[in-house]
Amino acid sequence: MISELKRFLIGRPLKSTELGEQKINKTKALAILSSDALSSVAYGPEQILLVLVTISATAFWYSIPIGVGVLILLTALILSYRQIIYAYPHGGGAYVVSKENLGMYPGLVAGGSLLVDYILTVAVSVSAGTDAITSAFPSLHAHTVGIAVFFVLCITILNLRGVTESATVLAYPVYLFVLALFILIGVGLYHIATGQVSPTLHSPIGTPVAGISLFLLLRAFASGSSALTGVEAISNAIPNFKDPAPKNATKTLIAMGTLLAILFSGIVWLAYYYGIAPKDEVTVVSQIAEQTFGRSFMYYFIQGTTALILVLAANTGYSAFPLLAVNLAKDKFIPRMFTIRGDRLGYSNGIIFLGLLSIILIFAFKGKTEHLIPLYAVGVFIPFTLSQTGMMLKWIREKPTGWLLKLIINTTGALISFIVTMMFFLTKFTQVWAVLIFLPLIIILFHRIRKHYDAVGDQLRLATCEPVKPIEGNVIILPVAGITHVVENSLNYAKSLSPHQIIAVYVPFEREDEVVFEEKWNKWQPDVRLVTLHSPYRSIINPLTKFIDTVQRKASESNYQVTVIIPQFIPKKGWHNILHNQSSLLIRAHLLYRRNLIITTVPYHLKK
Amino acid sequence: MISELKRFLIGRPLKSTELGEQKINKTKALAILSSDALSSVAYGPEQILLVLVTISATAFWYSIPIGVGVLILLTALILSYRQIIYAYPHGGGAYVVSKENLGMYPGLVAGGSLLVDYILTVAVSVSAGTDAITSAFPSLHAHTVGIAVFFVLCITILNLRGVTESATVLAYPVYLFVLALFILIGVGLYHIATGQVSPTLHSPIGTPVAGISLFLLLRAFASGSSALTGVEAISNAIPNFKDPAPKNATKTLIAMGTLLAILFSGIVWLAYYYGIAPKDEVTVVSQIAEQTFGRSFMYYFIQGTTALILVLAANTGYSAFPLLAVNLAKDKFIPRMFTIRGDRLGYSNGIIFLGLLSIILIFAFKGKTEHLIPLYAVGVFIPFTLSQTGMMLKWIREKPTGWLLKLIINTTGALISFIVTMMFFLTKFTQVWAVLIFLPLIIILFHRIRKHYDAVGDQLRLATCEPVKPIEGNVIILPVAGITHVVENSLNYAKSLSPHQIIAVYVPFEREDEVVFEEKWNKWQPDVRLVTLHSPYRSIINPLTKFIDTVQRKASESNYQVTVIIPQFIPKKGWHNILHNQSSLLIRAHLLYRRNLIITTVPYHLKK
Repeated sequence: MISELKRFLIGRPLKSTELGEQKINKTKALAILSSDALSSVAYGPEQILLVLVTISATAFWYSIPIGVGVLILLTALILSYRQIIYAYPHGGGAYVVSKENLGMYPGLVAGGSLLVDYILTVAVSVSAGTDAITSAFPSLHAHTVGIAVFFVLCITILNLRGVTESATVLAYPVYLFVLALFILIGVGLYHIATGQVSPTLHSPIGTPVAGISLFLLLRAFASGSSALTGVEAISNAIPNFKDPAPKNATKTLIAMGTLLAILFSGIVWLAYYYGIAPKDEVTVVSQIAEQTFGRSFMYYFIQGTTALILVLAANTGYSAFPLLAVNLAKDKFIPRMFTIRGDRLGYSNGIIFLGLLSIILIFAFKGKTEHLIPLYAVGVFIPFTLSQTGMMLKWIREKPTGWLLKLIINTTGALISFIVTMMFFLTKFTQVWAVLIFLPLIIILFHRIRKHYDAVGDQLRLATCEPVKPIEGNVIILPVAGITHVVENSLNYAKSLSPHQIIAVYVPFEREDEVVFEEKWNKWQPDVRLVTLHSPYRSIINPLTKFIDTVQRKASESNYQVTVIIPQFIPKKGWHNILHNQSSLLIRAHLLYRRNLIITTVPYHLKK
Repeated sequence: MISELKRFLIGRPLKSTELGEQKINKTKALAILSSDALSSVAYGPEQILLVLVTISATAFWYSIPIGVGVLILLTALILSYRQIIYAYPHGGGAYVVSKENLGMYPGLVAGGSLLVDYILTVAVSVSAGTDAITSAFPSLHAHTVGIAVFFVLCITILNLRGVTESATVLAYPVYLFVLALFILIGVGLYHIATGQVSPTLHSPIGTPVAGISLFLLLRAFASGSSALTGVEAISNAIPNFKDPAPKNATKTLIAMGTLLAILFSGIVWLAYYYGIAPKDEVTVVSQIAEQTFGRSFMYYFIQGTTALILVLAANTGYSAFPLLAVNLAKDKFIPRMFTIRGDRLGYSNGIIFLGLLSIILIFAFKGKTEHLIPLYAVGVFIPFTLSQTGMMLKWIREKPTGWLLKLIINTTGALISFIVTMMFFLTKFTQVWAVLIFLPLIIILFHRIRKHYDAVGDQLRLATCEPVKPIEGNVIILPVAGITHVVENSLNYAKSLSPHQIIAVYVPFEREDEVVFEEKWNKWQPDVRLVTLHSPYRSIINPLTKFIDTVQRKASESNYQVTVIIPQFIPKKGWHNILHNQSSLLIRAHLLYRRNLIITTVPYHLKK
């Protein structure tokens, strides 16, 4: 039944050879690879206002200089990533760049942050998408967590079925979202230009604000830089571009940066001009849209495309996480199961793991986007910093033509990313301290897993020279519980393996029982040696293991192998199992962990 | 670690021979066996008032005639059970009496009701005990369920350690409770006699009451008869009495009946005279005690002993349930695991099962005693009716001297019990309908379990004549995943069993892999046949089982046995298991359910 449900949800299995690679053109690539970055404008500007509102509404004008700061940061990042694209045309994820240039541990820090970050991508994007919906339909607000979890489940199932990132259908929502925001910004600016918006809604830029501090402004800047999450996506996906891939990827990167800059500036400006204050239950974008269009068709169009692109952004987590997991698993830092392709050729274990953890995060943070974002942004800026630093070292080491300019660009990128990371730790410590605990733990775990796999590899590798000593013979121990067909069946098998070295073992709880059974046995199987082990404490395992110890000791002297044959009762129906004391399973589980003991299960299938 | 926790909570294992039987004298027997019955007065009278209060406080005087009715019922039951004691000196539980005299199905109805009933005994007694505590300390009222569950856990652990019913320490609370209630009733009556209680608190007997109906009175009577639950306990425990057992048991029974009658009448009378109305958060006994003594030492003494005797009454469920379960399991109506004595010689499975189910009941009914009682009472009166009816048939069949009187007594008992049962169904249907569904389900389950055990017995019994055909030889299939020490180890074992009939099976996912592996193998083990099964769908199980099918078909033609050897990787630490794809376990689980296939696990223990 479970397998039928699986078939229904996931679809029929696919052959390995059905795995094809599709090259995508720039227009499609722009749409597909920038959903994560572009969707960030749905929550980034709001994060700035959320910090400023703690002072007063007068402080909102600071969002303009802060926005300019974010744009500078964006420019630096785009230029830096442009260089990474040319330097790593096979995909320059932060893990690869850091590992190659900075060494294993920085690579692991980047890899670990990114793993966590992709989980947060899903949680943040889905939560923000849910916010867009509940802003439009306030009655749904009580069900935020439920809606978000439902989205995660849907995306997880779709990915298990195998939605490839290259599906054309996924491109539409991105362009629709860009179109919707362009219309919003255009109409908004037109309203402002034609004087339809009262200029008294906001305090003019430069108004002195009581209680403002550099600390607070840095904090607002750090928060606003969460709008830049996702800009690294293109640099990871260069092999998917049509040739010349690096050139096409660069063009796409610049187009994305431009779009992101326009959308971000537009939203920040409109929010400032309209004097919008962040509210608990309505997003800033929703407020702008409502003020511009009222609750008209356009309003719902903007909210709908926002929700869609955010869910799509979550989907990018589903393509990035399993791929990174495969890379880490191939380097033996995480369990090997992440390298297995499922029925539909997706890396199912990674997909399921990602879905589960993001659901846990959504529950833990009750679907509150603003509480998830600081963690998310730190998780993004740590690998940003590391990969830019890696590029710096690369230029210094390799010194290609024009390396100085390249070095300066990446140094700027690294510095700014580092400063933003530090700002998060300094200004939002209460929200991001967990990174300082979990990141080292993850690195330690990576390290220990690698150590284990290395040790196992060493032990399994065949030292070509010395062959193992052949086994001289077999001693078979057969625990029996009565004189029945089950025992007869197992005994028959034992005789076929080693006719003269069989020891039947009976564990009676009562002395009387012992004598009676021995008599019966000797009448039935006079040729097979029976050993009875009286067990006053009614345990079967203890006397049995002690006895096996003794036999093993003797057997090993003459290089004999000891095998325990366990008769296992297989009832016709699953529920019947509860009606039989599962001694066989218990005995097997106990004996399996003993050295050098071989365990054979002889099933006895009941016919009714 | 789990086993250490178990050792700490439950204690060291005991030898079977440490199981001794202790005979107990009348005084102790009275205390130990009547805790269930006597404790019922803590909630019985309240149940009458709970029905009457639905009309008006004026109707409370009806509790007096209803109380008289309950006393008549008590007398009939005591007389009937007196006869059961003499007729079944080895213990006349309702299951035994019904099964012997009425046949299997009535026996099962009685047995099934009793099983459920013992669970309810625990739930009701513990809930009522918790009520006694929360009446004294109202601030605890919010934690009713928590306190009740805590009590159940304590009693369960104590019983797993092996508290025998005969522990002298258990006798004190019963006598203290009787003493406490005697003082309460005595002082209450003295206050009334000396005119310290205003006679205007209650309406005189005979006052006409608007809206009273026969239906309501019957309902109140049925509710009140819940005070009689537990009177059967002595008749089940006759073998524990000192000789002459039946005579001593009878005397104890009559003493218990007398005590119960006095306590019940006293409480009913005081409640009536004081004009006490049942309250949600304070029990009737607590109200009487407070009115008589104020919140003095005596008040807390009464509440304390009430709580104690109720917890003790729950404990009687723990001795009765496992014993009944053993009887039913010996008759093959419930799983055999209920017959196994645990480390401390108690029937652990029964004890744990009882504890779990009563906790579930407490949660389901939120610890509300008055909602549990109707189910409890029905569960008691069904077996009462059946065992009395059984006795009727016994007298008619056997006709001993003076059988007519005996017949009349048991007939009266059966009739009254039957009427009370019917009253529950007629007047409290909304609360007891579940019995009509669960009881038949339980009987069907009993029946199917019995059928299964019988079928298994038939299949296992050795037909003495024909011995099984010996196995001619063994074919060994060895799934391999690479060329490692693990495979070498298993192959070495396989060679010791059947050197010339080994087939190594390799399941590659890619065509290229196939060729490479075959070459390597032929260099390494040129003597061992290798079969490669290319699996385009990346499943190991499917191609392997198909291959095994083919081999089995051929092997069976010449009476060869097929064995699959599965190498199993045993890492040094438990958590390492997650780092290895558990293909061995999966393969084993799949193959075990195939007919006639023997599965051998060759463990390979990692050293680091």
